[in-house]
Amino acid sequence: MRMRKKKWADPWLAEHGDYAMENPAENKGKWKEIFHTDELHLEIGTGKGDYLNHMAKMYPEAGWIGIEKDRSAAATAARKAVEDETNDLHNERLIVNDAENLEEWFAEGEIDVIHLNFSDPWPKKYTHKRRLSSERFLAMYKKILSEKGMIRMKTDNKSLFEDSVLYFLQNGFMFTEFSVDYRRNPHEEDAITEYEQRFMDLGQPIYQLCAVVQK
Amino acid sequence: MRMRKKKWADPWLAEHGDYAMENPAENKGKWKEIFHTDELHLEIGTGKGDYLNHMAKMYPEAGWIGIEKDRSAAATAARKAVEDETNDLHNERLIVNDAENLEEWFAEGEIDVIHLNFSDPWPKKYTHKRRLSSERFLAMYKKILSEKGMIRMKTDNKSLFEDSVLYFLQNGFMFTEFSVDYRRNPHEEDAITEYEQRFMDLGQPIYQLCAVVQK
Repeated sequence: MRMRKKKWADPWLAEHGDYAMENPAENKGKWKEIFHTDELHLEIGTGKGDYLNHMAKMYPEAGWIGIEKDRSAAATAARKAVEDETNDLHNERLIVNDAENLEEWFAEGEIDVIHLNFSDPWPKKYTHKRRLSSERFLAMYKKILSEKGMIRMKTDNKSLFEDSVLYFLQNGFMFTEFSVDYRRNPHEEDAITEYEQRFMDLGQPIYQLCAVVQK
Repeated sequence: MRMRKKKWADPWLAEHGDYAMENPAENKGKWKEIFHTDELHLEIGTGKGDYLNHMAKMYPEAGWIGIEKDRSAAATAARKAVEDETNDLHNERLIVNDAENLEEWFAEGEIDVIHLNFSDPWPKKYTHKRRLSSERFLAMYKKILSEKGMIRMKTDNKSLFEDSVLYFLQNGFMFTEFSVDYRRNPHEEDAITEYEQRFMDLGQPIYQLCAVVQK
């Protein structure tokens, strides 16, 4: 999902800091209050924002936060959200920064659902540690997830999915949902992005799981 | 894998009770001694026996036991094994009976590897309890598996695989291997049956996992 660098991205982001935040440390522990909600969703690796924007509109009573470190992708996502007249953005924000730092922005137990959609598979072995489902990230997610929190993951990448199954299980998670072809059944509750639709059009399966911390 | 009833099956099986046994309770706890081995494999739902016969020849120092309750399938499997001049059957037996009764034939901790290959998916909900990876069977497998024992499962059936992932995890197992497309990588150590080859020829993925009891 890497994009060509967009020259307009930096100035545009600088002008829209209310929606696209760089370091919202002042919101830590206060997101539910800010959104007037008791259900907080976090999408890590928001890309061009289709999923986040769609879901924030589908579930207006929940809060939706995206994290995207690629500034061109983040600017594209943010611009779509800001220019969408059907979206008042009352329950949606984007953090333009690296997910490595998420503990600066979220308190322990603050997040209810973490979404990992079509994350970068980092295929080379020496880059596996950068995967968003790798051990180091799972340890961070555990801290910010609420008591009944969950991680929802979807991917088209076989190796990322197979390895992630073992990462989750070796790090104290358990699955409550599991699919090797998620879209063969209707899931109207879960937005299909253009990116995902391309794989579906090619007849490629979407792998999906929902993981919770094992009690 | 259900077969048409073969008239010759019953008389043939009756004549070859040394290899195709009905109720080998007298071997309980003694299989490793009988086979002069310290590694015992059990395939449940052996069908026409291609996997069992192939693996027993590939790994002559291990012991290989199959269970097949369909008498026509079992007779076909047994006949192939007995008539194969390259197979001296020193390390292979077939049990022609229902796997429900396996505790009559195996002592606690006696089996090192259980193989479930392309088991009947029993698609209808009210028949799920007959699946060989369902809770009731897993409880039996746990008893007969050795300390380092494992269950190796392969299937082409999406729903059976997805549900089985949850059965294993909800019943104290952990995965050490996991694949959503096992045959995309070479696995020369694991025999491909004609049945499996048909799915591979159609470009359908083979799902695979290896489960161990969580310590």
